[in-house]
Parts: sequence; structure tokens; C-alpha cells
Amino acid sequence: MSESELGTLSAADRQRLDELNARLKELNGTFIGYPCSGVFDYAPLFHFLRYPFNNVGDPFVTSNYQLNTHEFEREVVEIFARLTRAPEDASWGYVTGGGTEGNMYGIFLGRELHPEGVVYYSEDTHYSVNKILRCLHVRNIMIKSDPDGRIDLEDLRETIRIHRDVPPIIFANVGTTVKGAVDDLPGIKKILHDLAISQYYLHVDAALSGMILPFVEHPQPWNFADGAHSISISGHKMIGAPIPCGVVLAKKKNVDRIARQIEYVGTLDTTIPGSRNAFSPLMLWYAFHTVGEEGLRRSVRRCLETADYAIARFAAIGRAAWRHPNSVTVVFDRPSQNIVRKWQLAVLHGAAHIITMPHVSREQIDRFVADMAEDESPAANGELSPEGETIP
Amino acid sequence: MSESELGTLSAADRQRLDELNARLKELNGTFIGYPCSGVFDYAPLFHFLRYPFNNVGDPFVTSNYQLNTHEFEREVVEIFARLTRAPEDASWGYVTGGGTEGNMYGIFLGRELHPEGVVYYSEDTHYSVNKILRCLHVRNIMIKSDPDGRIDLEDLRETIRIHRDVPPIIFANVGTTVKGAVDDLPGIKKILHDLAISQYYLHVDAALSGMILPFVEHPQPWNFADGAHSISISGHKMIGAPIPCGVVLAKKKNVDRIARQIEYVGTLDTTIPGSRNAFSPLMLWYAFHTVGEEGLRRSVRRCLETADYAIARFAAIGRAAWRHPNSVTVVFDRPSQNIVRKWQLAVLHGAAHIITMPHVSREQIDRFVADMAEDESPAANGELSPEGETIP
Repeated sequence: MSESELGTLSAADRQRLDELNARLKELNGTFIGYPCSGVFDYAPLFHFLRYPFNNVGDPFVTSNYQLNTHEFEREVVEIFARLTRAPEDASWGYVTGGGTEGNMYGIFLGRELHPEGVVYYSEDTHYSVNKILRCLHVRNIMIKSDPDGRIDLEDLRETIRIHRDVPPIIFANVGTTVKGAVDDLPGIKKILHDLAISQYYLHVDAALSGMILPFVEHPQPWNFADGAHSISISGHKMIGAPIPCGVVLAKKKNVDRIARQIEYVGTLDTTIPGSRNAFSPLMLWYAFHTVGEEGLRRSVRRCLETADYAIARFAAIGRAAWRHPNSVTVVFDRPSQNIVRKWQLAVLHGAAHIITMPHVSREQIDRFVADMAEDESPAANGELSPEGETIP
Repeated sequence: MSESELGTLSAADRQRLDELNARLKELNGTFIGYPCSGVFDYAPLFHFLRYPFNNVGDPFVTSNYQLNTHEFEREVVEIFARLTRAPEDASWGYVTGGGTEGNMYGIFLGRELHPEGVVYYSEDTHYSVNKILRCLHVRNIMIKSDPDGRIDLEDLRETIRIHRDVPPIIFANVGTTVKGAVDDLPGIKKILHDLAISQYYLHVDAALSGMILPFVEHPQPWNFADGAHSISISGHKMIGAPIPCGVVLAKKKNVDRIARQIEYVGTLDTTIPGSRNAFSPLMLWYAFHTVGEEGLRRSVRRCLETADYAIARFAAIGRAAWRHPNSVTVVFDRPSQNIVRKWQLAVLHGAAHIITMPHVSREQIDRFVADMAEDESPAANGELSPEGETIP
């Protein structure tokens, strides 16, 4: 097949694409409910999409498939390693297809190190973690959450206490999906210390907050320096990207231990997928070389200010709204279904939120709060969210 | 952060991207060892990469995250369902990030249906399947292969016979990675029948051949009509795409059975990842609406002719080369390391191959065979491939 035989779209098909474009453009105007930045411009990279490139395999191992961007991927991993305070030359990672893959990698690693382990995670954990636990076939126990969304330390302590014969694999949230809560890492470590548990694994899901906390003055404890063994961070959230992506990082000595076991079955490849997208590492590299860390710091500051602005506007109409420190997730009681639909809100039980990502403007907040002021069912109306909300 | 604050690249960084581009362009000229087509042009879709779109969740279930291309994804799934002879209105599927994810989904489904099941797969199976089996924590037994790469039916029969107390989950290859072999589905079904086994699951990995066999006159048995319960096919291989992608299809009644169980843990989402790329469904849709099925048929015919041309050229220099019926994988003895590197060949033990994908020209074959004619170590030189070849 030559290039000239690729054919062209019919007029009807072209129109369908135009309609899709118009729909996406319009929806973009009311896009305040999800943690995905809409501010990015990767057009200078589009020409790379001519190549059948593929980052298959470990970015730190030479591959015969040379049409790759492993070199750029390694640099991205190194930037994330620094921002998560990974011990120098002692961490490993790769660019994932999103947070779920990074979390799967982290729990997989914990389970390989502690085959008898039990995974503990709070009820405010993203639903995808249930899917992962089921896929990985690992014993797991859901722990209660505090009303503010953090893992309930008393429940965690009592539950670990009665399972002291097996190593705990803690799945900690750094920024929960609905309330933006950061689990108390020092509190978790104190429990393990009090119970004299030396064999454990701590994975951190920092999908959104992992690109906020490196850029604030007083971050909650959340990273390798605070005891994490692995961390998953999304790339399409705070940084922004049209293709979901992320980075997973882990301690090299743990990865090496399981790599030796995996090698036995015939490959040095310790990533989960086979073929891996070579474009996402380029986008993340590009973002760090254009927006840069200073740009991200400014952006985070502005997002937090927008969050406070939203809370003040809510207060002005007599509605309660709140956020955690360093969180851009503004939580309030669930409004009527009309507002949920119009503003594409993520809702869970009685709670709803907006997330003041970089593209969310004060003008949008004003319009949203004006709609809220006229909402006929101001309190949570008892109509529960259907289970199965698909929140990215 | 406003659009104007995104910043620009430094001259040095721009140069690095230019160097990457030059390197990829050059490597593209010797790209005959991998099953990824280099003939595609999705430039008319690039403008969609302005949006933070995301196909999170089941494409057949409405999502609050409306910035998606679920509508196009459903149409792609329907095209693949027809081409794989899935029973009408009785199949389900989604666009994956590649073959590995589709295979993981298939084995996951088989294991959920038969929790005590044992997975059987041939030693010629792609290495990523080992990773999947390890991830999914499922009992598995590797079966010998025939010299031509197909699963050894006698070994399979004897091994299933001594494990008749647990349901078999058969992982069948339709086009093995190295030799392009198609496992004998009728032969496998005969074994199950002879042993009076009614509880089993049959997943088909048709990464490359799944987009060849629908377009040839005499396909080997390979699809739903031939007994498959689920099939994984890559999109970036025969169709071609700069971002790895694929489609996984499964019988709806099986998906529904496990969906009910997954619903219990709080989501209707039966896909494996959380966030899913919304661009890949657009690319596949676009390919079917421009190249189309007739274009693919012509392309497949030409690829098979190129494969035969390569075999004839090999014969002309006194070297043996062969291929399976309907396969574009031309197998020969492993040449010297110089040739492996120059032509980016995938090698395994004593065998190497070229794959005559749509971008591979007769002129490239001539150049390659000329190099082979001058190769100083014409026979397999005993130097084994490092384990850990990363073949996409």
C-alpha cells in the first residue's frame, strides 16, 4: 500500500468528525468537574506521529526495536524521581498509560515481594483499585474513611492488628478522587512501628496531587522521603495531555528483586504492557522543557487561589464548600441532576466537587455558582449516584 | 495558566527533537523485522489532540465524562466483531492500548469464569503472556511447540488429560510472534471433546493475523465461528498507528456474568484501565473509513506477494526461508549480529524473520538479501539471542 492509496473520507464522514469536534469544543466550556487540565499545546510534536514508534520494554534496557523515545522517557522518569524525593540512583520507573497502570504496577510489586500480603485501602479509594485487586488476585481489606476522606487510622490499626501474621501492603491515597484527601503517612508508619511490623509495602497513589505537592510550600508527607516504596502519578491531570499517561516510580532494589524472578520466565522487561506509546514521554518531556517547574509552581498557586475564590463565592450564596490544604478539589453537597449533567460533575453519594484545574477560570466559577444559587434542590437530595460513575 | 504562558523550547531542546526526528526517519528505512505497518496518515485527526478527552469506562455505558469518543469506539468494536464473526448482538469489546492488554482481559475473563482453571499456552507464545499470567496469579502450564511454531497437540492432550479435574483455559496463538504459526483450533476442540471436557475457555491472541485472516480466501480456523470465547487484535500492526492500540472482543454473556460480580465492588466498568485514550478509536475508525476493508484486502494480498518475493530471493542466494499459509512472517536461520543490528531484526534462538508489512518494498528486500548474501556467518552461529528481546 502506498501513501497515495490511503484514501480520503467521504463528505458525510468528514461531517461526523466536524460534529464531534463541535461537541468536544462546547463540552470543554463546562469542564470543571474532573482533574484533567485543558491547558496544553503539543502541536510542535505532532509530526512525530508519522512514525510507527513504540517504547516496548524497559526504558533503561536497550531494545532491538530502535524506533523509540526511551532516551526522553528516562529523562522524564528522572525528573519525577527528583520531584518525589526518590533516593538518588536507587529508583526505577517508566511512563505508563495512566494512573491505574501505575497503581497496578505498585500493588503487583508489593505482592511479588510479599506473596502472602494483604492489601489495605480506604473506602474513599478510586474504584479502579478494586478492579486491580481483583485482577491481581490478592487478599485485600477495605478500611473505613474519616468523614474528610482520609483513611481511618483506628480502623486500620485494629485491622492490621488482627492480621499480624501476614505483611501489610498499604495502598495510600495522596489526593482522593472525591475529596482530595491525603492519607496520613506518618500515622500509618506509627501503626506499623507500634505493632512491630517490619515486613510491609507502602504504595502511594498520587494521581493528581503528585504534581501539586512538589510545588507548594508546606506539602503533607507523601513521597519516598516519607516512606513510600512506590508512587503512581498521572501526566494528563495537572500537567495536561490529550492521551492519558503517567509515571510510576519504585525503589530499584525491589524492582531488581522481582526482575530476577521475571527474567527466569524469559524476559528482562519489567513493565506491565508489551507495546508502549512512545509519544507520551515526548509530551511530558516537552511540558517540563517549556512550562517547566517554575511554570507548574505558578500554575499550582493560581489553581489554589481559584479554589479559594470558589469557596468564597459559595459562601456568598450561603452554601458550604471546603477543601483540604494543598488541594484544588472543592467539595460541596450534591446539587440537582440538571446541574450535574450541565456541568459534567463527578458525584458520589451525597457529595460533589469541582476541581480548579489550570483551565478553570473565575468567570466559569461565577457562572457555575450562579446556577447553584438557582438550584431548586440545594441540599443533597437523597438521590444517590448510580454506582459505576466512571471518574478518570 | 493561560495558553500564552506555555513557553517555548530552547534552541538546544529544539535541536534534540530534530535529532530524534532524523534518527527515527533513518531507522524507518531498515524497518523490516517487526509487525508494525509504517503506512498511515492520521494528520487530519491531529486537531483533536487539543482536547483533554478520555474514553474512561465501558464504551457501551453512558459516562458523566462526556469529552469522549465512545460513539466512534462502539463503531470500531462493531467492525471488528463482524470481521471476527462474532455472534450478532452477542459480543462486547473495547479499544485497548495494545495486544497485551487484550490478552490480559481475555485470560482475566477466563479465570473469573473458571477460578480453578489452568492456562495452557505453547512455548512459542509471546513473552508478555508470562507477565500477564504472573500478574493474574493463575495456574498455568507451558506446552511444547511443533518445530513450525504451532502448539504440540499431543503434549496438550496428555497435559490436559492429567489435569481433568480443573477447567482448561486455552491461550491460542493466531500468528505466533516469531514464526507466524496459527494454532490448530479444530485440533484443540477435538481434544476437549475426546476428553469429555465441557467447562473450558478459549482465548485467541490474533495480534497481527487478526487483521490478515478476514481478508484472505482460505483462512485457517481462528475466530468466534471457530470456537473462540475472546479475541485480542492489535491496531498498530496490520492497520498501522503511531500509538499502540488494539481491540479486545468477548462473548457478551460471559462479560455480563463477570460484570455482575464487578458491579458488586462498585462499578459497571468492565475495562481493565481507568483512563483510556480517546484518540486511538478515532484513528481506527478513520482507517476503516478511508483505507477501508477493500484497501486492507489489497494491502494483505500485496504483503503476501512481497513475502513470496522475499522467499524467492533467499532461494536465489541458496538460503532457506519459509512462511506459513496466510502469514507475512518470513522465517530463516539467524544471521550475524551485524545484520541483526543494521536491520533491527527480532531474533529468538536460532531463528530470525522479516515481516513483509505494507511499508516493506521489494527494493528493501533486495538490499536486505544482498547483505545476507555477503554475511560471513550464514548458518545460525550458535550465539543465542539474549533472553529478554522486547518484541512488540
